[in-house]
Amino acid sequence: MPAAPTSGPHPGVVPAARPGPATDPSPAPGVLRVALLGYGVVGSQVARTLLQRADDLAARAGARLELTGIAVRDARRPREGVPAVVPADLLTEDAGSLVDGADLVIELMGGIEPARGLIHRAIAGGASVVTANKALLAAHGPELFEAADAAGVDLSFEAAVAGAIPIVRPVRESLAGDHVRRVLGIVNGTTNYVLDQMTTHGLELEEALKEAQGLGYAEADPTADVEGHDAAAKAAILASLAFHTRVSLSQVACEGITGITAADVAAAQQTGHVVKLLAIAEQTAEGVSVRVHPALVPVAHPLAAVRGAFNAVFVEADDAGPLMFYGQGAGGRPTSSAVLGDLVSAARDRMVGGRGPRESAYASLPVLPHDAAVTRYQVRLVVADRPGVLAHVAQVLADHGVSIDTVRQAPDEPYAVDVAAGTAALLITTHSAREASLAATVAAVRDLEPVHEITSVLRVEGA
Amino acid sequence: MPAAPTSGPHPGVVPAARPGPATDPSPAPGVLRVALLGYGVVGSQVARTLLQRADDLAARAGARLELTGIAVRDARRPREGVPAVVPADLLTEDAGSLVDGADLVIELMGGIEPARGLIHRAIAGGASVVTANKALLAAHGPELFEAADAAGVDLSFEAAVAGAIPIVRPVRESLAGDHVRRVLGIVNGTTNYVLDQMTTHGLELEEALKEAQGLGYAEADPTADVEGHDAAAKAAILASLAFHTRVSLSQVACEGITGITAADVAAAQQTGHVVKLLAIAEQTAEGVSVRVHPALVPVAHPLAAVRGAFNAVFVEADDAGPLMFYGQGAGGRPTSSAVLGDLVSAARDRMVGGRGPRESAYASLPVLPHDAAVTRYQVRLVVADRPGVLAHVAQVLADHGVSIDTVRQAPDEPYAVDVAAGTAALLITTHSAREASLAATVAAVRDLEPVHEITSVLRVEGA
Repeated sequence: MPAAPTSGPHPGVVPAARPGPATDPSPAPGVLRVALLGYGVVGSQVARTLLQRADDLAARAGARLELTGIAVRDARRPREGVPAVVPADLLTEDAGSLVDGADLVIELMGGIEPARGLIHRAIAGGASVVTANKALLAAHGPELFEAADAAGVDLSFEAAVAGAIPIVRPVRESLAGDHVRRVLGIVNGTTNYVLDQMTTHGLELEEALKEAQGLGYAEADPTADVEGHDAAAKAAILASLAFHTRVSLSQVACEGITGITAADVAAAQQTGHVVKLLAIAEQTAEGVSVRVHPALVPVAHPLAAVRGAFNAVFVEADDAGPLMFYGQGAGGRPTSSAVLGDLVSAARDRMVGGRGPRESAYASLPVLPHDAAVTRYQVRLVVADRPGVLAHVAQVLADHGVSIDTVRQAPDEPYAVDVAAGTAALLITTHSAREASLAATVAAVRDLEPVHEITSVLRVEGA
Repeated sequence: MPAAPTSGPHPGVVPAARPGPATDPSPAPGVLRVALLGYGVVGSQVARTLLQRADDLAARAGARLELTGIAVRDARRPREGVPAVVPADLLTEDAGSLVDGADLVIELMGGIEPARGLIHRAIAGGASVVTANKALLAAHGPELFEAADAAGVDLSFEAAVAGAIPIVRPVRESLAGDHVRRVLGIVNGTTNYVLDQMTTHGLELEEALKEAQGLGYAEADPTADVEGHDAAAKAAILASLAFHTRVSLSQVACEGITGITAADVAAAQQTGHVVKLLAIAEQTAEGVSVRVHPALVPVAHPLAAVRGAFNAVFVEADDAGPLMFYGQGAGGRPTSSAVLGDLVSAARDRMVGGRGPRESAYASLPVLPHDAAVTRYQVRLVVADRPGVLAHVAQVLADHGVSIDTVRQAPDEPYAVDVAAGTAALLITTHSAREASLAATVAAVRDLEPVHEITSVLRVEGA
């Protein structure tokens, strides 16, 4: 590992190492020097394409993109599966020097440090930066965007959200004249695969997860995916872009899919829904609500048809109306496509003197507390099977200002198989209610004598 | 009508009318003057948003966007349904002078002239141009892009293809590092509505079309939609962008939906397909194939779920894999969203000195003749119901090099209701074959003695 700086606001800045100002031209006319930081599944595909499609990229960027080096932790480690087209002597352990000599820097190391320090060093040296590092942006985005702004360079990150799907560019550029009301995203392929398998084959979560691990769709430690942390970082980025305000990861309410059972999925199907893990960003009169949680999505909603490990982002805007962007949210080649799209734009800006859009946070909207979110709920509970119980439960909801849409009592439906004699399964769907009201309501209902169990409480989105 | 020039390569150029060079700054710092040409359903929404969202637009564009005038044919004509927020004194019949005083020109007049002349005049005067005029771009795009390039201004046209859906920007920018293989688009809402109604309610085309006209989804004269001309102009633009080559409207093979019957739709459903009018652009080793025709799309394909008047564009790229972009393809507000996204980008470029992507036609690929397209076919025919007929038909296909995937003989299925006694309905699905081979095959099959009728020949796409 090179001695990459690991702390301070601009830890990697070594301005003296650059021969000139930020607008220092490339050594050869019409050539831009590209430094690649990281050589994993995405980095190796980026390197391959830079070399194999060099002529196309040059024609599109207006400059030849010369891959000057690939920074890795250990250049001598044997590597399998790297593209044969990439010369081994491009590998270097000296990321700092590589960055100092570059016009364009691609950061695919992941994690906070040394990525953060190297990006600051690149920006201070006048290079534009392309990154896929959602964790870094969710944690330190504002500081990095400010540095890029001050230096007049691009810092782009299409690959950080939903892999190959163009979503960052459409939201911040195509919708720049519109008013986005809401974003609903399936932005984690692992959990979508797991939930889809549960839906299609009636599996329990653990079985589906094992299958996903076997197919390489889930990590050995799937925590970041199944607990929703990965989706939360993307939700923070999407909300920031959509509403022109800053949303940090810590402001995202996050609930994963670990509580979802085969019975939940079956009950959802009975009522015409599928269970999806959604990243949700909404703007209301009070501010913005940003959250990740499993939700029931009506089968007729375009998001319900997103199968397997695919991702999709559904956007509702005042003028455009509903839009959806669908594709592969992960994987080396899909993610490399997004990285290279950003790289060509950054190269073009460099050649003609322009800039990509900078951070737009002028709206400075309050991020609402988690329990202020307003949505509909579906509550499944097991109650004593005797007259008056339904009225009793309904009265408790009414007392808390939660209005009931429908109630189903359905002991013969698949989700009610565990209902013992003398009890009945109820499925209550509410109208829109505040999370805080619903939580208080559920607590009160749980305390009722005839209520044996509250089996699940799930939100309904996209209706 | 002002005396707008109507012919010649740069008919509207009056350089002397501009006080300075193309980079002439705005009169007030931080203000860009916007001229709006056309005040129909899209123009009135654009005007409304420019005035109502002025602060947001200024924050996003980096400059105030001042609407300096709206060019109309007759400024004194009474207008209904125009936004109250737009002052009537913005209307002018002098489009030329309005253009001469503008930094940004929005062309929403439609048609070739005077739109073409006014865009040339705007570009020559140093203004960037946003247009939604697909007919103009399909007919005169190269000449306009060259003029914009020479003048160093933006000429953007997101609204010309698929209304509100961001597709121009994703294809030309997000996918700039990828290799697009194929584009399949539902880019005409009228025909998608008609086909969807036929699918859902079993209507004949005329009934569905009347319904669409009643709801305002179809024009009184629906020719441009149902004959596929509207989709063909969009196919030409999409193919040009996707393959970095020039494709003109005249090179697009075009077949509308007028031949589609309720029986075709029913037969499609029997084999797990829906009928969609597709704009198709494909790159093969020989060149590019660009065509518009009705096609059978497997129900599991994401395009099959595109209902009503919605549009969607499905893109297959080497690295990104499959992508789909979905939304409203027409209408005043959706289209205005796309126009304003382009306007904000053009304004930003003007303020920071950059440029949007220019026309990329370096690949200069041959556009293949119509009968060179390769696809699968489903052929329905009525034959004499006796032994050996199927073998006979199959032999004719084999003789022409057309390989059969499946044959169904199904006299009791809905599409075979008209089959008379002593005859049988056959449904043959082929493997991929050249259009030319298939045409010759169908002609030969039609001549066979036991073949009573070839009921339909439909292509299968997206499998």
